[in-house]
Amino acid sequence: MSLLVIGTLAYDNIETAHDNRTDVLGGSATYCSIAASHFCEPRLVGVVGEDFRDEDITALKASGVNTAGVEVAAGKTFRWGGRYEADWNTRHTLFTHLNVLEHFDPKVPEDFRSSKFVFLANAAPGVQSRALDQVEHPSFVMADTMNLWIDIARDELVGLLKRIDAIVLNDEEARMLTGENNLIKAAGQVLGLGPRFVVLKKGEHGAFIMGSDMHFSLPAYPVKNVIDPTGAGDSFAGGFMGYLALVGAHDPVHLRQAMLHGTVTASFCVEDFGIEPLAQREKAELDSRYSDLLGIVTV
Amino acid sequence: MSLLVIGTLAYDNIETAHDNRTDVLGGSATYCSIAASHFCEPRLVGVVGEDFRDEDITALKASGVNTAGVEVAAGKTFRWGGRYEADWNTRHTLFTHLNVLEHFDPKVPEDFRSSKFVFLANAAPGVQSRALDQVEHPSFVMADTMNLWIDIARDELVGLLKRIDAIVLNDEEARMLTGENNLIKAAGQVLGLGPRFVVLKKGEHGAFIMGSDMHFSLPAYPVKNVIDPTGAGDSFAGGFMGYLALVGAHDPVHLRQAMLHGTVTASFCVEDFGIEPLAQREKAELDSRYSDLLGIVTV
Repeated sequence: MSLLVIGTLAYDNIETAHDNRTDVLGGSATYCSIAASHFCEPRLVGVVGEDFRDEDITALKASGVNTAGVEVAAGKTFRWGGRYEADWNTRHTLFTHLNVLEHFDPKVPEDFRSSKFVFLANAAPGVQSRALDQVEHPSFVMADTMNLWIDIARDELVGLLKRIDAIVLNDEEARMLTGENNLIKAAGQVLGLGPRFVVLKKGEHGAFIMGSDMHFSLPAYPVKNVIDPTGAGDSFAGGFMGYLALVGAHDPVHLRQAMLHGTVTASFCVEDFGIEPLAQREKAELDSRYSDLLGIVTV
Repeated sequence: MSLLVIGTLAYDNIETAHDNRTDVLGGSATYCSIAASHFCEPRLVGVVGEDFRDEDITALKASGVNTAGVEVAAGKTFRWGGRYEADWNTRHTLFTHLNVLEHFDPKVPEDFRSSKFVFLANAAPGVQSRALDQVEHPSFVMADTMNLWIDIARDELVGLLKRIDAIVLNDEEARMLTGENNLIKAAGQVLGLGPRFVVLKKGEHGAFIMGSDMHFSLPAYPVKNVIDPTGAGDSFAGGFMGYLALVGAHDPVHLRQAMLHGTVTASFCVEDFGIEPLAQREKAELDSRYSDLLGIVTV
């Protein structure tokens, strides 16, 4: 079935303890789409500036992403700069230039509106809601968010939570949203706000999904050489949602399998800068890691 | 089969953000034995002072622990005081009074020496080695250690690693022993020092076991109300080793199952102070949590 991905496209400046890169193609919807493209033809909705490179649109298309919903607006593409500490656990935002994102009003193309699976990548909850308004009868909608929106747009976010099937949060966001330090309790409280499922990401410690009668926990894939964690969360969401769209299902068994697929796509993402490590993988390589991961968790 | 547990018996003073306790029966071998007693009749070797309470020996015996190897020495029982931060991640040692432990020379009773499964709970590596010297033909020996010994007795510890089948370390200890931040790499380096398996504990993030051709990862059991984490690691080891002793096997399949049993015994341990929350459980309660945990990790 069809997957609609709405979010940001960006150029990132990334500093790690080992290396630096400038003007790397990034953004939440970019990473998610590339990851999902291993499973389906994701439909991408976002905005870029006039400086967006043709080769980057070409790269997205070459990966099988439908870019018909990428709007080119007057001005510059969204830019983000960040620096990671050597232990990867701490990320400092060096700058955020919203540029064309500042006035982004998502327009879902007519022939994208019947999409059954929808991922609302990180954006202001108001933007996410306006995008969702344009989708006709979605089967399964998952949203991402970030600490900024929990801080400055909590009411809109809580409103959105009542309209979606699943929310993906990292540990810090879950604690911030609920004020609860215990992640199991925090996830339970988020469920009380409306969504049927909470996907809680814990970085190197893996992730779990919780629903009213479901709890499934998974370690991270044991990546030996992390080069750049940017986009890992979005790549997880892309593998997760791409797989659900592929099978056209969102029952507990397929949700569990989707957690493995998301973990695998995220594991490739962090092995180099940008989308290349994920875009260049063959399906057989993903399948091989899926088998490895299954071996690591099977009792 | 038989399980021999060698380590400390102690009286602990424990401070948490919610409550305090003094003179709580504790110690590495105590927690391990109580956990293992749900699976087999552990043989306990350790030393206590003349102040050790009769009721505590009675409690150990009532749980099915063979206390014939508990030596009563002139002086006071080992005492430890600690305080936990509200997030449980930070533990401060308030005091350590070695007392009778200072001159502890383990004496394994004659009829314990044929034990097939051996757990060398946290003690000086020299003490652990001298205990192991007295065991005739063990099938599977696991040892625990701590940052202190990595710091002041590294050579003895490295020597011990060549003589044992498995070492259990927490994340901090693994990083300290190897100088490697990535836990997967750190575990691989520990394997290079001699043991066939490394069990790496990550607290609320679960644990993994790694061997030359084995890697199994498991989340922690989702405990909703942690009251006191003291003894969790030793309770894990007790469930792990007790189960292996019960089945008389240490092949990869049983090692994976042992990881679940250890996780379950640790989950009961943290639900109150001391050994009571673990000692008072019926086997059916352990089985129920084992099933829950299996449900949480089964794809």
